[in-house]
Amino acid sequence: MSTTLEPATVLDAPSRAAADWLRQFDHALRTNDGAQAARLFEPAGFWRDLIAFTWNIKTLEGRDEITAMLDTTLPHIKPHDWRMSEPATEADGVVTAWFDFETAVARGKGLLRLRDGLCWTLLTTADELKGHEEKRGATRPLGAAHGVAPGRQSWRDRREAEAASLGVTTQPYVLIVGGGQGGLALGARLRNLDVPTLIVDAHPNAGDQWRRRYKSLCLHDPVWYDHMPYLPFPEHWPVFAPKDKIADWLEAYEKTMELACWHSTVCTKAHYDDDAQEWEVTVERGGSEITLRPKHLVLATGMSGLPNVPAYPGAESFTGEQHHSSKHPGGEAWRGRKAVVIGSNNSAHDICADLWENGADVTMVQRTSTLVARSDSLMELATGVLYSEQAVASGITTERADLIFASQPYRVMPDLQTPVFRAIRDRDAEFYARLEQSGFMLDFGDDESGLYMKYVRRGSGYYIDVGASELIANGSIKLKSRVGVEAIRERSVLLTDGTELPADLIVYATGYGSMNGWAARLISQEVADRVGKCWGLGSGTLKDPGPWEGELRNMWKPTRQDGLWFHGGNLHQSRHYSLYLALQLKARLEGISTPVYGLGEVHHLS
Amino acid sequence: MSTTLEPATVLDAPSRAAADWLRQFDHALRTNDGAQAARLFEPAGFWRDLIAFTWNIKTLEGRDEITAMLDTTLPHIKPHDWRMSEPATEADGVVTAWFDFETAVARGKGLLRLRDGLCWTLLTTADELKGHEEKRGATRPLGAAHGVAPGRQSWRDRREAEAASLGVTTQPYVLIVGGGQGGLALGARLRNLDVPTLIVDAHPNAGDQWRRRYKSLCLHDPVWYDHMPYLPFPEHWPVFAPKDKIADWLEAYEKTMELACWHSTVCTKAHYDDDAQEWEVTVERGGSEITLRPKHLVLATGMSGLPNVPAYPGAESFTGEQHHSSKHPGGEAWRGRKAVVIGSNNSAHDICADLWENGADVTMVQRTSTLVARSDSLMELATGVLYSEQAVASGITTERADLIFASQPYRVMPDLQTPVFRAIRDRDAEFYARLEQSGFMLDFGDDESGLYMKYVRRGSGYYIDVGASELIANGSIKLKSRVGVEAIRERSVLLTDGTELPADLIVYATGYGSMNGWAARLISQEVADRVGKCWGLGSGTLKDPGPWEGELRNMWKPTRQDGLWFHGGNLHQSRHYSLYLALQLKARLEGISTPVYGLGEVHHLS
Repeated sequence: MSTTLEPATVLDAPSRAAADWLRQFDHALRTNDGAQAARLFEPAGFWRDLIAFTWNIKTLEGRDEITAMLDTTLPHIKPHDWRMSEPATEADGVVTAWFDFETAVARGKGLLRLRDGLCWTLLTTADELKGHEEKRGATRPLGAAHGVAPGRQSWRDRREAEAASLGVTTQPYVLIVGGGQGGLALGARLRNLDVPTLIVDAHPNAGDQWRRRYKSLCLHDPVWYDHMPYLPFPEHWPVFAPKDKIADWLEAYEKTMELACWHSTVCTKAHYDDDAQEWEVTVERGGSEITLRPKHLVLATGMSGLPNVPAYPGAESFTGEQHHSSKHPGGEAWRGRKAVVIGSNNSAHDICADLWENGADVTMVQRTSTLVARSDSLMELATGVLYSEQAVASGITTERADLIFASQPYRVMPDLQTPVFRAIRDRDAEFYARLEQSGFMLDFGDDESGLYMKYVRRGSGYYIDVGASELIANGSIKLKSRVGVEAIRERSVLLTDGTELPADLIVYATGYGSMNGWAARLISQEVADRVGKCWGLGSGTLKDPGPWEGELRNMWKPTRQDGLWFHGGNLHQSRHYSLYLALQLKARLEGISTPVYGLGEVHHLS
Repeated sequence: MSTTLEPATVLDAPSRAAADWLRQFDHALRTNDGAQAARLFEPAGFWRDLIAFTWNIKTLEGRDEITAMLDTTLPHIKPHDWRMSEPATEADGVVTAWFDFETAVARGKGLLRLRDGLCWTLLTTADELKGHEEKRGATRPLGAAHGVAPGRQSWRDRREAEAASLGVTTQPYVLIVGGGQGGLALGARLRNLDVPTLIVDAHPNAGDQWRRRYKSLCLHDPVWYDHMPYLPFPEHWPVFAPKDKIADWLEAYEKTMELACWHSTVCTKAHYDDDAQEWEVTVERGGSEITLRPKHLVLATGMSGLPNVPAYPGAESFTGEQHHSSKHPGGEAWRGRKAVVIGSNNSAHDICADLWENGADVTMVQRTSTLVARSDSLMELATGVLYSEQAVASGITTERADLIFASQPYRVMPDLQTPVFRAIRDRDAEFYARLEQSGFMLDFGDDESGLYMKYVRRGSGYYIDVGASELIANGSIKLKSRVGVEAIRERSVLLTDGTELPADLIVYATGYGSMNGWAARLISQEVADRVGKCWGLGSGTLKDPGPWEGELRNMWKPTRQDGLWFHGGNLHQSRHYSLYLALQLKARLEGISTPVYGLGEVHHLS
């Protein structure tokens, strides 16, 4: 054994490869040589940056894009101190390494994948701003003010004083519209970063968004995927939480996290004052109109935007009950009566099953094909790899899982997802065959890449099966597929094939518009058009028109309207990306320079 | 290297010693040879058992007591499968080993300390009952009932149905009187063990016990010591939580843990029906009287029992305001007025400081000496060893800390605590000197063993300094010490040295009685006397008369009244011992035989 190497410093081969790469990378960055840094990537390599370099959420694809980004950002970002945070690993010819690094203003974490010594994928994320770290663990607040001070305020005094003043005599820096899981998660991050924030929500209590939905609703994603920031669900929490249990949790979360939230408060309009660089937002609270003047406005109104209700001829003449799926209260009132559910995705299935369980005669109208995946199979073969009891037991904490997931560039993801869904199709072949025999139109995505890709491309088009598919297969839920709706009549739905379905109830499970519909409603069509469509990648697949953008449009990152932000997504996205949105807002509050690289182009308005 | 030993099976010396001991111990137990097992202990060795062998909380001291216990319990307990759960360690001549084991009905955990091959201390605890394990982690409930079933209940339906029936048409198996941290912690354990439990509490909301106390109150123990079962405080939680923040947490906890709790409900009387083997408990709820018939009654009314107010002559003629410390609302109303606080322990100090901060002229009357320890010093030198950020970082989880702490027999504890408090006295010598110069009477316990021993012996006699001592030292809080109260006059307090203190307000910070005072009030004096004094060890020190009992009297374990249990203590005790009380109750619900070994004798009535 060499005398110059102590045993403690001997690195294994993957760690040596990763350490070598980081050293060369660091050297190129320190010498402001973007082209040299880019040559350390595969020609078509990827760099996904979550605000550390770009103050944006951005994937650079290939050496040219990487070089261009570095040439612009290196002078002010000043990255340094790259170091592996644990030994690297190697599998299937890919070396994977976790690392930490710093920029001029932030501490970051990242994940590197090497193939034959060149970088295939690089993830860089800002984790905290220097000098503005959250106070937790060893730096948590003392709480009790030890010592004595005449006239000091207690914790409750301070909470009450804030509640009396914020939005009244003082203005929040950030106003979040919407107090669902998204608004609360972001609110908690901002509270812990000392960013004065007010949340307004139309409902009387946190969690009411969930309480008001149909009774049988449960989360479709398993518990390990769903934790909120800071306060993980306890070990007894059910795998698929019922809606009212989630509602209670959100109510407790709001209180525990000390969020400032105005309930029963409706945001009616907002206008950006370019001179003052602030918003003028009108809200209705307790019968009176209040004007708020935040610097930043976050729409956390649900990533699905406003309900879509198709304008079918004759709908106004229908004498039964008709409503959008988001307004469906549950099937109790429909025993022995006829219901028609238009649509064939998650809500449509849940509502059909609920109506059937309650003794209604229910028909689903399937206009286009649907991706169906059994919940068990998804847990085992898809989410379970990163989010499951086994993953936790093997050391994949929620934070680690989130970073691993985030390290997969969207361009690469279909290649990673396609085999997963091929395995699901094999495993459940008999199930799919029976479902198709009922006439149900199945798909697995335009390119067979499965459910998650549909979710990020269009946010719709799938059903996570928790039982309704069996009811369709066995005819309990009647199915009309390969048809459209021609018209609504006085007490029936007329289909394009001439069938007339008698109906006491019509449920339009017809989806939602883009989130910028909220901007149109609250601000103006002009601003909605300026920021453009939200969500989707530009994949050129159904409902996600190109050109390719490589990241979700407008989500959690700067938009083309100053001070306007969109926050949303499922619980996992809401948890993870709220960190980066919160850091972007904190940096602006503190006057830290945040030059945005690669602000998205607007190609579509909705 | 020997060819018969594979490297993987080579144990280090401490592990070998512990494994050898466990093997011999196991052999003695399997052959029902209690005397042989006892010979593996030091002659004066200790065995502390938390319900695994004794269905009691019991410390056996010396070989004779160990032999006697084993001779009685071995035939039915059938302990087996002793195995080390991690490598043993050695320090200062003591080998320490963690182990798992099983009995006929339970799985257990324990901690062993060896000196020269013999057992110095052994801890055995039951951790779960076989076939009645809590459903958590990989066995957590599914939540959503996948598949469809006409007429099925949602989670909310079930919760509402339980709320409508429990205590009305169905009877709880366990009734907990008191919904503070103790009642809620036990309630959560019982919920997760599927033991039908109802909590009744006099206050409108969970946490009100805290909300109603004086405004400046904060926890005196640091956050790492205070976690509730199942739901640890988040990382941002302050070190010393303000009372209203704890109150909000308890309110959220009740909801998250799905506890059945009747608020604004007062328990007025209880009677044990020996024939039916159940309680008849009368509660007042919503203006009407309701009779409950639980099998078990748990008093979780605060380990301090009922307030003590000394009957000073003339008190009835006092024209100012006078109340016990537990009723003190805070000092706001007393600016510029004269207050006398009788007592010199925690509440007395907190209330004096609060009155002074609010501009009152305040005098503390110290009748007997007090142990004072600075909060910082306690954190660093006492609790911090097991409960601190550093402890967590070094792998001492809350569960591990609790077991280490529980493994120290009360007989040994003064020897372990005395050097800690000697170090505190050295460190803070200047502070103590200044305090004594003000006339303050200091002590460190009858045998100098410090604060925790005072706490377990008498539950009083100390102040954890968070600032009031400085106010006493510098004369801001006036002090009259070495005196008693002779009488109360119309507008003053007359002391035994003839001093007359003018007073607009008198606060009696004069402590609390034994918890069995609650049994006297709710059940009968006869039952209170039958179970006898609660708390204290029989140490023969002030307020803890002998004979030696070795465990806290009546706490978390069977009493001499069938079906009557006492639950309480600080947050740490409440968290840890609620496990054993819950398992005792679960075993009885399931008809598991629970022969109690060594039921406590009653030597004192209060």
